[in-house]
Amino acid sequence: MSDDTRIPRNSENDHTSEMAEVRREFIKQKTGADLIHTGQFSIDPAVLPGNIENFIGIVQMPVGVAGPVRINGEHAKGEFYVPLATTEGTLVASYSRGMRVINECGGVKTTVVEGFMQRAPAFIFNDAREARDFGHWVDENFDKIKAAAETTTSIGKLEHIQQWSVSKTKYLRFNYTTGDAAGQNMVGKATLMACEWIKANSPIPCMYMLSGNMDTDKKHSHLNMLHSRGKRVIAEIILKKEVLARVMKVDTKMLAGASVLANTGAQMAGAAYNGPHSANGIASLYIATGQDEANVVESHAGMLSHELLDNGDLYMSVTLPSLIVATFGGGTGLPTQNECLQMLGCVGKGKAEKFAEIVAATVLAGDISLGCAVIAGHWVSSHDQMGRNR
Amino acid sequence: MSDDTRIPRNSENDHTSEMAEVRREFIKQKTGADLIHTGQFSIDPAVLPGNIENFIGIVQMPVGVAGPVRINGEHAKGEFYVPLATTEGTLVASYSRGMRVINECGGVKTTVVEGFMQRAPAFIFNDAREARDFGHWVDENFDKIKAAAETTTSIGKLEHIQQWSVSKTKYLRFNYTTGDAAGQNMVGKATLMACEWIKANSPIPCMYMLSGNMDTDKKHSHLNMLHSRGKRVIAEIILKKEVLARVMKVDTKMLAGASVLANTGAQMAGAAYNGPHSANGIASLYIATGQDEANVVESHAGMLSHELLDNGDLYMSVTLPSLIVATFGGGTGLPTQNECLQMLGCVGKGKAEKFAEIVAATVLAGDISLGCAVIAGHWVSSHDQMGRNR
Amino acid sequence: MSDDTRIPRNSENDHTSEMAEVRREFIKQKTGADLIHTGQFSIDPAVLPGNIENFIGIVQMPVGVAGPVRINGEHAKGEFYVPLATTEGTLVASYSRGMRVINECGGVKTTVVEGFMQRAPAFIFNDAREARDFGHWVDENFDKIKAAAETTTSIGKLEHIQQWSVSKTKYLRFNYTTGDAAGQNMVGKATLMACEWIKANSPIPCMYMLSGNMDTDKKHSHLNMLHSRGKRVIAEIILKKEVLARVMKVDTKMLAGASVLANTGAQMAGAAYNGPHSANGIASLYIATGQDEANVVESHAGMLSHELLDNGDLYMSVTLPSLIVATFGGGTGLPTQNECLQMLGCVGKGKAEKFAEIVAATVLAGDISLGCAVIAGHWVSSHDQMGRNR
Amino acid sequence: MSDDTRIPRNSENDHTSEMAEVRREFIKQKTGADLIHTGQFSIDPAVLPGNIENFIGIVQMPVGVAGPVRINGEHAKGEFYVPLATTEGTLVASYSRGMRVINECGGVKTTVVEGFMQRAPAFIFNDAREARDFGHWVDENFDKIKAAAETTTSIGKLEHIQQWSVSKTKYLRFNYTTGDAAGQNMVGKATLMACEWIKANSPIPCMYMLSGNMDTDKKHSHLNMLHSRGKRVIAEIILKKEVLARVMKVDTKMLAGASVLANTGAQMAGAAYNGPHSANGIASLYIATGQDEANVVESHAGMLSHELLDNGDLYMSVTLPSLIVATFGGGTGLPTQNECLQMLGCVGKGKAEKFAEIVAATVLAGDISLGCAVIAGHWVSSHDQMGRNR
Repeated sequence: MSDDTRIPRNSENDHTSEMAEVRREFIKQKTGADLIHTGQFSIDPAVLPGNIENFIGIVQMPVGVAGPVRINGEHAKGEFYVPLATTEGTLVASYSRGMRVINECGGVKTTVVEGFMQRAPAFIFNDAREARDFGHWVDENFDKIKAAAETTTSIGKLEHIQQWSVSKTKYLRFNYTTGDAAGQNMVGKATLMACEWIKANSPIPCMYMLSGNMDTDKKHSHLNMLHSRGKRVIAEIILKKEVLARVMKVDTKMLAGASVLANTGAQMAGAAYNGPHSANGIASLYIATGQDEANVVESHAGMLSHELLDNGDLYMSVTLPSLIVATFGGGTGLPTQNECLQMLGCVGKGKAEKFAEIVAATVLAGDISLGCAVIAGHWVSSHDQMGRNR
Repeated sequence: MSDDTRIPRNSENDHTSEMAEVRREFIKQKTGADLIHTGQFSIDPAVLPGNIENFIGIVQMPVGVAGPVRINGEHAKGEFYVPLATTEGTLVASYSRGMRVINECGGVKTTVVEGFMQRAPAFIFNDAREARDFGHWVDENFDKIKAAAETTTSIGKLEHIQQWSVSKTKYLRFNYTTGDAAGQNMVGKATLMACEWIKANSPIPCMYMLSGNMDTDKKHSHLNMLHSRGKRVIAEIILKKEVLARVMKVDTKMLAGASVLANTGAQMAGAAYNGPHSANGIASLYIATGQDEANVVESHAGMLSHELLDNGDLYMSVTLPSLIVATFGGGTGLPTQNECLQMLGCVGKGKAEKFAEIVAATVLAGDISLGCAVIAGHWVSSHDQMGRNR
Repeated sequence: MSDDTRIPRNSENDHTSEMAEVRREFIKQKTGADLIHTGQFSIDPAVLPGNIENFIGIVQMPVGVAGPVRINGEHAKGEFYVPLATTEGTLVASYSRGMRVINECGGVKTTVVEGFMQRAPAFIFNDAREARDFGHWVDENFDKIKAAAETTTSIGKLEHIQQWSVSKTKYLRFNYTTGDAAGQNMVGKATLMACEWIKANSPIPCMYMLSGNMDTDKKHSHLNMLHSRGKRVIAEIILKKEVLARVMKVDTKMLAGASVLANTGAQMAGAAYNGPHSANGIASLYIATGQDEANVVESHAGMLSHELLDNGDLYMSVTLPSLIVATFGGGTGLPTQNECLQMLGCVGKGKAEKFAEIVAATVLAGDISLGCAVIAGHWVSSHDQMGRNR
Repeated sequence: MSDDTRIPRNSENDHTSEMAEVRREFIKQKTGADLIHTGQFSIDPAVLPGNIENFIGIVQMPVGVAGPVRINGEHAKGEFYVPLATTEGTLVASYSRGMRVINECGGVKTTVVEGFMQRAPAFIFNDAREARDFGHWVDENFDKIKAAAETTTSIGKLEHIQQWSVSKTKYLRFNYTTGDAAGQNMVGKATLMACEWIKANSPIPCMYMLSGNMDTDKKHSHLNMLHSRGKRVIAEIILKKEVLARVMKVDTKMLAGASVLANTGAQMAGAAYNGPHSANGIASLYIATGQDEANVVESHAGMLSHELLDNGDLYMSVTLPSLIVATFGGGTGLPTQNECLQMLGCVGKGKAEKFAEIVAATVLAGDISLGCAVIAGHWVSSHDQMGRNR
């Protein structure tokens, strides 16, 4: 690569409007793209170190507001206006419509069950027996390992270490609580320190890799469905038969039947989520509020459940086992993102669980809305033709 | 919900700076959040219908540029500067570093294998036998069903219909090619028309739901790993032993060994991807270029493969089976997003495959970079302690 | 290994009672085990070539008979007495009890949806592009490949070839119909011939491995859940509320509720089957009738579905997507196994679909029985304590 | 069902040769099947209560002996002759061939990592919050729950309880050690007692179902891959390049390459096992030794791993995470089955781990053998045509 293909940098002060302009000009020369709008922003690039390199400007992602949605959570209590950053038309309207249904049914109940962040190193040995015995030693020395890990952080707490033996490798999965940060970096540093302590102290010589992919970071996994990465959050509602009929033109019994079909389809497909579209709400809310946008892949997994009650109402819940959220650190402090967090009263420390509850409520709203839309358009119309499923 | 909680709207002309300001003021009153930066944007809200509702402003997502990366594709040929919108520090730098390795190894070879978009209705019957016989009728009448579907679109082409019988339900999965659009809406409309034709003409009475969740839309699924939703793209490279050692301080053999460990961990975890972090590159590039941001959940799935060659070089490839991309429609036409597509020479029709190749090359760059970083930091250091694995 | 550890063989005539005795004596000397009962059998060892090597005797596996069960199939029509070979107490009684319920509800309706047997070679190339282009060539030359494959068999018919590109490998999956044989060997030979033809005629040089593990032979896989290996069979029944209450002391609504819980648990577990115990009935019936006993791993996968009807009756069905059965070849011709097939009227050609229907009916009987037992014992008793779920 | 369709029983003494004959005669009248060979057996039916109901005779399943195989285990030490009951020709020969390779390489090293048996009840509540709080209470009262469970058994020990919250359900998974019994019944009784204690003592009213399908009993599940049901056993060997070339005509490097292809195929297929055919050896050995034949579905799951060493030798291991075995109880006491256990020195108490090691060694033998056979037949021949993969 010749020198003149190198993206310009300023080793002294790289996060400035000037350097962004230099780079835009460079890109224009190289690619012909005139980054006019990308170059217009109100935020001060000086806030960006820690968020971006080779800064050239900003993408203007439109934000709409959905709601309000009534949430009866332990942390989120009241009505919330939810900012959604998206370029997909109807998304905001659809979530809003679901929120209206929720409100008319008295609001959504939200519960944070647990929350962890992981780093999962792999230790390799000469044979399986060494790996097994090492595992026993790890169990016996948990307190010391925990102490080593926590030297690196005042917030992160090592709660437990899971183990898996495969061949001559011992996969460990360090589970931490991380306060209001998502915590990936925090637990990475802590686990590195723990691993170094282990390497220095293990009676069985070992070498390790800091991640053996059982974290599992930045990808969906069945493991994370089982053992929460991020927060395990559940949102519940009893959909009133009358409300659903009036607002959505859908019968609760029909929605129950459709949910069974969709659930079976999801099982056959081997899907990470069995409802309509958790990813839409999560991705939009994540972008608006400065969450790590890639975490939608872990976070969208879950289980939509329902139960038709005797009175014709429909209990519905969504369980999101690996919702990775932060109200502190990462992109949450950037000006527009922070403003969106402010809309939700979720800025800063002590707010992560509240924010998690809002995300879960939003997902449920979206699934009520789209679930009904699919039925109202297409299922009802054909409903009279057949007998037994009425 | 009392009227005064309702988000203000203007039924005449809702996508204006004025209405955005009215809503921001409303939000300020309701939540206390002063949306100063969110309210500053250069784009004309008049372009936004079809992209957002209840528009209040924009999120300023910082964009960095990585590269260039040399791509030897069938559609993408040459060096590309890749815009990445993210708030995660080191991400751009890491992808850039991987691109440098790629360039020094002669570039990445990219191949688009196939591409489809799906809508998967569920047809329900009185019993399994009816469902089975209906399936035969569908096969026999494919040409007519195709004709009905294609009345709704000049671009979408129905290529084949997959079938699954479960209980008394027949799940159909309509597979279309959709030109340069991602095509979710296109195939939804076409399939609705096809279903209505089927309902009117099937000798066996049926009712259907337009989606039975075997699409699978907006969620990862093993089915989409097998039967591509979006484009199936493969990026390949032969990493030269000398380059990896010099640039990344990593031995190819060690990278191969680490990849085996990571792959095994991913299998144990039941992960959607067995490499380090496909989702990071995909999410960042998607946001920058106006892709549907929720599609990262389908798109991040894949398989990282490697083979240590006799000369010490390391063949590495990434297979992304369900990469959903568009260079036309959706958010691709928005000003900043379109500028980012311009950087890549991917604006408009005839560019989707080129763009898919660029995404795959970017993913491979990121995985080379992070894969090496994990090793360089931690694996090498402990490498001398043990014997057999040297 | 010294010579005197070698198991005795007779190269002239190895399948005789005498050689079995010689070997039993050898085993006695080596291990101290006196194989008295193992050495007692009525069958003539001369029938065993093709079934076993190093024959030492027989395991006496007790057989019980369950039923009768009324089946309203397309191939199995009437009442059937089902032989189950097992050492697990209560198994036969439990299946019998389920069959009684079935009979009182009018019988089970069975449907064979489709049936295939596969061999899935992997072809490797220099790069992904070659693999893709090779795939196109395979599609274009299907008729010739089919002709080559079918030179090896008068029964097997190559119906279609599935393709998957991963890295520079093209996985092909040859799907055959195989008459009344399970067909694993038949399709192995046919596919070998097809592969040799492909290797000789492909314009792109290739090498292949006869199985790349996408068959997937002798292991459960999600792929086989989707794309039937063996027969896809569905058994359905409408459980009458009155019958279930009288015979099983279980309310249909409670069984429906329990099925939802069990289904959710299975989804969380990532289970191959969501009902109580398909494997028990399949394994027992397979051993009794000379099926390949290892195929229970593919065959036990499936989906138990239910729907509570307005009149309080409960529709229930089991879908077994990969039921591998034979009424010809393998162990089906051995004396006792053949007698058990005679009990079912399933000896020889033209009977495989009938037998598949009987297996599916048996599985459904067992799941009705155990599903109710779990509830009757434990769920009902606690049912009065709580409100909403009544 | 008319009376004359009822299978004859003798309420006084049902497990006799006479009653078996009465039933065979009944079957002959009903079905025409003359159960001549089925009626010939040497075992005394008086031993069968607890193993079978409606006994009509025995299936004569041929047994061959494979081996010997040298095992360097912690429990199994020395050379073992392995009884395999099968009707699939070449199976015994193939396993024997793999054992010869193992012996010439110095034997297989086996390690039992851990062992549990589970029962997993589901507790349902009014909402998710109650379920979560109940979970905390369970953790706090583990000792009392353990005490309640262990009142039912002198052997079973409750080691830990796993928890999962989904919707308003709390799934618990009780993990026991069970001595030398497989333990399904033992843990069922113990867990029932524990659940009754919980129901009586929980401050939050609850109802439960004894199994919510997260056990997961009699089906493969990803959960059991992670959290061993039965014993987690690993068998390892270093295959010498010279031995493999001489005995199997296969190069270690080629076997490594083929294993990668097969592993990738298994990942794409979503397979429960990534090697050739674990189920064959397990099923055959299980039938011969009176194991519960349905448990092959859980037991066949696993991971075949390999590593090509610098000297050209090939490290290979198989990890079987959920191998369910017993040397006591169930069918292990039946005459022929017990004789087969005697061959292995695995009769009775204190032998379960030894037996587990033998099963794992057998599986590895079979996979070496079939893995090489696939290559020797088809891969080698085409190996000269291409360059890079040599």
